[in-house]
Amino acid sequence: MTRALADEMTHDHAGRLARAKAECSAAGIDALIITPSADLRYLVGYEAPQLERLTALVARAADGPVLVVPELERPRAASTPAGGLVDIVGWRDGEDPYALVRGLLADGRTYAVSDRMWASHLLAFREALPGSGFLRASAVLSKLRVRKDASEIALLSKAALSADESFRRITEEGLEGRTEEDVARSLQRHLTETGCESAAFWIVGSGPNGASPHHEPGDRRIGASDTVVLDFGGRAGGYCSDLTRTVSVGEPPGEAKEVHSIVQEAQEAAFRAAGPGVPAEEVDRAARRVIDGAGFGNAFFHRTGHGIGLDEHEDPYVVEGNGQPLEPGMCFSIEPGIYLAGRFGIRIEDIVTITGDGVARLNHAPRELTVVS
Amino acid sequence: MTRALADEMTHDHAGRLARAKAECSAAGIDALIITPSADLRYLVGYEAPQLERLTALVARAADGPVLVVPELERPRAASTPAGGLVDIVGWRDGEDPYALVRGLLADGRTYAVSDRMWASHLLAFREALPGSGFLRASAVLSKLRVRKDASEIALLSKAALSADESFRRITEEGLEGRTEEDVARSLQRHLTETGCESAAFWIVGSGPNGASPHHEPGDRRIGASDTVVLDFGGRAGGYCSDLTRTVSVGEPPGEAKEVHSIVQEAQEAAFRAAGPGVPAEEVDRAARRVIDGAGFGNAFFHRTGHGIGLDEHEDPYVVEGNGQPLEPGMCFSIEPGIYLAGRFGIRIEDIVTITGDGVARLNHAPRELTVVS
Repeated sequence: MTRALADEMTHDHAGRLARAKAECSAAGIDALIITPSADLRYLVGYEAPQLERLTALVARAADGPVLVVPELERPRAASTPAGGLVDIVGWRDGEDPYALVRGLLADGRTYAVSDRMWASHLLAFREALPGSGFLRASAVLSKLRVRKDASEIALLSKAALSADESFRRITEEGLEGRTEEDVARSLQRHLTETGCESAAFWIVGSGPNGASPHHEPGDRRIGASDTVVLDFGGRAGGYCSDLTRTVSVGEPPGEAKEVHSIVQEAQEAAFRAAGPGVPAEEVDRAARRVIDGAGFGNAFFHRTGHGIGLDEHEDPYVVEGNGQPLEPGMCFSIEPGIYLAGRFGIRIEDIVTITGDGVARLNHAPRELTVVS
Repeated sequence: MTRALADEMTHDHAGRLARAKAECSAAGIDALIITPSADLRYLVGYEAPQLERLTALVARAADGPVLVVPELERPRAASTPAGGLVDIVGWRDGEDPYALVRGLLADGRTYAVSDRMWASHLLAFREALPGSGFLRASAVLSKLRVRKDASEIALLSKAALSADESFRRITEEGLEGRTEEDVARSLQRHLTETGCESAAFWIVGSGPNGASPHHEPGDRRIGASDTVVLDFGGRAGGYCSDLTRTVSVGEPPGEAKEVHSIVQEAQEAAFRAAGPGVPAEEVDRAARRVIDGAGFGNAFFHRTGHGIGLDEHEDPYVVEGNGQPLEPGMCFSIEPGIYLAGRFGIRIEDIVTITGDGVARLNHAPRELTVVS
């Protein structure tokens, strides 16, 4: 057994499958077709690599669920919770797996496919099932996945605490004279040594590179009085963390200090705005009001946050135009930033969860501008 | 600059874009729409994460190429070879990127999308471009990507040699008493310390677990006289390696020795069958004849191999039914196996490349049954 599989055992997959079936019936969807993705793991606990050989869960509104797998992956699939939940049907290289799925379904119906299914698979299903309509599975699955239960929040917390501890370790190591790539490697190691089974991503944007929000760590050497944006996360039982802190190498220049305090105030305002019943966009507006008011509106050119779970980015999105009311169990990032091209960038990000009567942070790393050596 | 970006500079992206454009014109395809994938990296040298925010290269047959990116990723995209090759157009959170792409195209035409585009993006393009037809981009791009040039073979060789050296190191370490997960972690470290920028996958199937070809390493402790299937690879400049060797902990039982020698003979027969002009399926048949002849036909239930490059699995597939003639520059795996459920499995895999007049191995790790402590 793998560690990830042990974590998987803590989830109620049977309940999830039953709720997905009910949602499909209510929405007039005849079946979900789910290829390897967070959706597949969520529903049947099977973490499978997305490859050209078709693996697909066919969850029908009127019938039992079937997992179609390449014959050579049957033992792997059967050893996961899927083995006790669904019928597993194997196909061999040279056979047509789309025809096999067609045999489980009917033409001219409505099917929902996982949002991250490869186009090559979707185009093959369209040919195999002529006259059928295809929708995104998130139309039904997002309703289930967006509200995390206790077993999910426990894993999101574990991943968040691993990110917090990784941040503590990297600040103790010091940054001056190191390349961004070297710091990124350290962050990856800290994540896997503090509770995550894997590191998922690592942004290290030093000095002017910090003004590129998704900067890829390179060979720039971090210097004295640089600010450095550290944005990284890993996975615990598949559930993600995503933490951003901006640090200063030695005493920060006055402007970096000033901009950091504006971003910190915006992050705090967004946090205080969140709670059950509040539209997601109100959280975005709360952060934006602070930054606009300080005259940096044009330098905050991304949304305030995104949901997080088995996917790094998922519903709910904290963005203008999303009036979806926040509900208990929703988990998402709050991550305003200010980016001054050619100079520096500042971002502060925590993962938070909506509770019965408010909101709680899953991250506890200090949000003040940390000075490192 | 990152190490991967330095490798990227060795490729002729402008030539690739021009050839893709010519292939589209010839095939009656009005544009390629390429989201983050090996296709995108191949054409413009931009390695981007596939996310819900749309990044898409729109390569039109009748016009210049445009790269649509989230505004927050513009600096990252511009710092890659794409910056000098295509127009970059940014969009901000809250705007509709599909409408932006529609503005570059026309309704009622034929478009080819990257095979690994997410269904959510493809379904959005279908709505944004009513009456248009959508095909897989591999219809044109496979012709380009399947024949590797010298700069690509150099990176595939580098990745292959890193896998060979990682195998040497793991055999020197010894396996007895270790868990599969622990051995998998060692393999990952060896790959990144011997020339790969990242480890891509790692199968460690010990004893009966070796009979599951895609076994996920777990907490099974490797014992004396176990055979262990080690199948792993990493990436050098984005190009993959994929090596399998089966080892024996201490002196192997007679049957494992016998089965190993059959698989080794099958691997050798397939290698000798390969060469320019030979249909891919003939290589599969050569391996299968040996294993069928020894009476283990039912225990070899997967194809003999797959192409390899920027994707772990890509054209050409070495499988019955694929009559595509092999051409110089094609690179693929030869990996027959025999799997005896509940007992053990044996697989031997090398990456090979078709030359002007024959075939050459990129892997040089010993193919004999290696005895380890």
